[in-house]
Amino acid sequence: MVTVNENFKRLPGSYLFSTIGKKVREYKAANPDKKVISLGIGDVTLPLCKTVTDALHKATDEMGNAETFHGYAPDLGYEFLRHAIRDKDYAKRGVDIALDEIFISDGAKSDSGNIQDIFGLNNRVAVCDPVYPVYVDSNAMAGRAGYFNKEEGKWTDLIYMPCLAENGFAPQLPEETPDIIYLCFPNNPTGTTIKKSELQKWVDYANENHAVIIYDAAYEAYISEEDVAHSIYECEGAKKCAIELRSFSKNAGFTGTRLGFTVIPKELVVDGTSVNGLWARRQGSKFNGTAYIIQRAGEAVYSKEGQQETKEQIAYYMRNAKIIRDSLADAGFTVYGGVNAPYIWLSVPNGLTSWEFFDKLLTEADIVGTPGSGFGPSGEGYFRLTAFGKYEDTLEAVERFKRLK
Amino acid sequence: MVTVNENFKRLPGSYLFSTIGKKVREYKAANPDKKVISLGIGDVTLPLCKTVTDALHKATDEMGNAETFHGYAPDLGYEFLRHAIRDKDYAKRGVDIALDEIFISDGAKSDSGNIQDIFGLNNRVAVCDPVYPVYVDSNAMAGRAGYFNKEEGKWTDLIYMPCLAENGFAPQLPEETPDIIYLCFPNNPTGTTIKKSELQKWVDYANENHAVIIYDAAYEAYISEEDVAHSIYECEGAKKCAIELRSFSKNAGFTGTRLGFTVIPKELVVDGTSVNGLWARRQGSKFNGTAYIIQRAGEAVYSKEGQQETKEQIAYYMRNAKIIRDSLADAGFTVYGGVNAPYIWLSVPNGLTSWEFFDKLLTEADIVGTPGSGFGPSGEGYFRLTAFGKYEDTLEAVERFKRLK
Repeated sequence: MVTVNENFKRLPGSYLFSTIGKKVREYKAANPDKKVISLGIGDVTLPLCKTVTDALHKATDEMGNAETFHGYAPDLGYEFLRHAIRDKDYAKRGVDIALDEIFISDGAKSDSGNIQDIFGLNNRVAVCDPVYPVYVDSNAMAGRAGYFNKEEGKWTDLIYMPCLAENGFAPQLPEETPDIIYLCFPNNPTGTTIKKSELQKWVDYANENHAVIIYDAAYEAYISEEDVAHSIYECEGAKKCAIELRSFSKNAGFTGTRLGFTVIPKELVVDGTSVNGLWARRQGSKFNGTAYIIQRAGEAVYSKEGQQETKEQIAYYMRNAKIIRDSLADAGFTVYGGVNAPYIWLSVPNGLTSWEFFDKLLTEADIVGTPGSGFGPSGEGYFRLTAFGKYEDTLEAVERFKRLK
Repeated sequence: MVTVNENFKRLPGSYLFSTIGKKVREYKAANPDKKVISLGIGDVTLPLCKTVTDALHKATDEMGNAETFHGYAPDLGYEFLRHAIRDKDYAKRGVDIALDEIFISDGAKSDSGNIQDIFGLNNRVAVCDPVYPVYVDSNAMAGRAGYFNKEEGKWTDLIYMPCLAENGFAPQLPEETPDIIYLCFPNNPTGTTIKKSELQKWVDYANENHAVIIYDAAYEAYISEEDVAHSIYECEGAKKCAIELRSFSKNAGFTGTRLGFTVIPKELVVDGTSVNGLWARRQGSKFNGTAYIIQRAGEAVYSKEGQQETKEQIAYYMRNAKIIRDSLADAGFTVYGGVNAPYIWLSVPNGLTSWEFFDKLLTEADIVGTPGSGFGPSGEGYFRLTAFGKYEDTLEAVERFKRLK
């Protein structure tokens, strides 16, 4: 008799953003006259820039012509895109990454969910708290997380690294030694980051303890300060212990276009086994590449014009971040983040829980945000706002916020 | 100390088509003057049809405009595409599938590799032999396959269902009772299929034994005979036991464009748990949808013009199939398949092994095929040729074949 994966049954409720989506749909259906502004899910609103749509058109024409048609893509992705990544994301910053250390994918969510596939089930996993839910859920599905303790809001077998206001939302080295450490800087959801010298400590810690760091750098394009690393490989020794995940979603508006990549240096060897080779095998067997036209769109992001146009998009969103941050601070809210990341992390006022504040904000101000507790128990009492809205909507949202208080 | 997934270390060699790709690249590099014709990997050669490229252009323009831009797609995929699938693939054939039983993905390879995620590790898995390697490799990576016995070419814990000339390449009900049964009709690699009445026996068997059938219907568009089911749900009771995988790769030339879908009826309940809900959770947590523009391209396939244009492509490939089948039979080869599928399955002559014939064909006739043994031990002595080449190349290839003998 067939059985299901029992680990799935232990998952509490649905995926966070699915739950929020459902709540918002129901509210809109019941209040069709209300103008709901979303500062909730981290989804971009600016259209694809011209250089990118030009590349899509051109590649589409190629796909419509027998002479220039492309079937299955190479396993790792097209060299033209991996070349651009190697040169512009790494070599430019003094980091030497080889072409066959870069794996093109359909986005960082898939990669961050699937990467645990290549590791043993007995590894102890450490996550920041609050945390992007995919790291937790994918390990829970595989059975590495144990059981979910509803009262604590924690999985029994995960190591939680609380990131709170008192430590500047930076995780501290955990008491128990983990085998796999998920880090995300600039951080989703707190919108904060750590200095390169702090990141170096994590790299040293991982190397000393034979741990692997899964480093999610999806928001690196938003870094504005000098002493923050854009890639973990800027730290010495990181190639021996770190996997880096990157995305085109936030730096070029590809949330609905789907493109990302994972870097696994060949120096990363676990007990004699090349982790790069394991991922190559995993992707070769369970993935079939990203559309040619979308890889061409990704290449266009690295062109001179593409860089200029996407920089303008990032500046647009970061202007929103500053508006939210400054206006809410002026209005008496306690706010964090929004300097090196498109997220603002807000202390929920008046002793409300995160979900109570979610409901209040939705019903009293028609604003969608994300409850901090959805990201882990240490997110309780906090609330995430994103800077990905339209400028005018962001202005209106902060006005509504001021009236709310 | 971190550990890797030990199951990966048990995998013999690399993914079949990666191995072939490497051999061919090396041969071409050493023989730059030779015109190598590939009848190997099942990759299409005709360009995307006009209706599809028109849809891509239109959707790209939408993505370049703030008013019509699309960010993250809905979890299950856009309704416009699921509507088209429900109506044209199912309702038209008298099969009632609900919109929320359809999950859009980036292709059937991802889905057929990932679907095992939602089942327990203790399930006994049955596969046809020969078989599309993804079913085997993905279960081996999860630990359901046991150990690979090199001498037998088999995994210790899988149930193999030999498909040989003497049984018309149809699997027989296995002696041991499996929990999960992978079936693919029209079949890759043998190019053969079974009648609907035979498929009904499998559905009845699965329901009697509380087993799940994972039904890969990637080649359904190539069915030319009346008594062959296009969907397993044409069989009575299939909604209680079967998951169906579909692809746009072969019916619309999307190998380099990436689109597929999986159907999981809500009636499919395992020990009180909705399998549909498990997959929704898996995809919601570890996947982030397919590009908007590509979902629009998929919708265009279902338009009147799209249906006409893709039917012409299929007719083109099936003409190739007939040429290969008839010419090789005339030349004294024993051939199977090619009537309801774009694959021809060839008995390797002169007592050569499949890989010996691969090398002979490559070096003496500059033709790439796929060794049958790459698909499982019962594939030894057979060889797969695909009809996806260009017409002129196919003609030239069969001439070279005739000279080879």
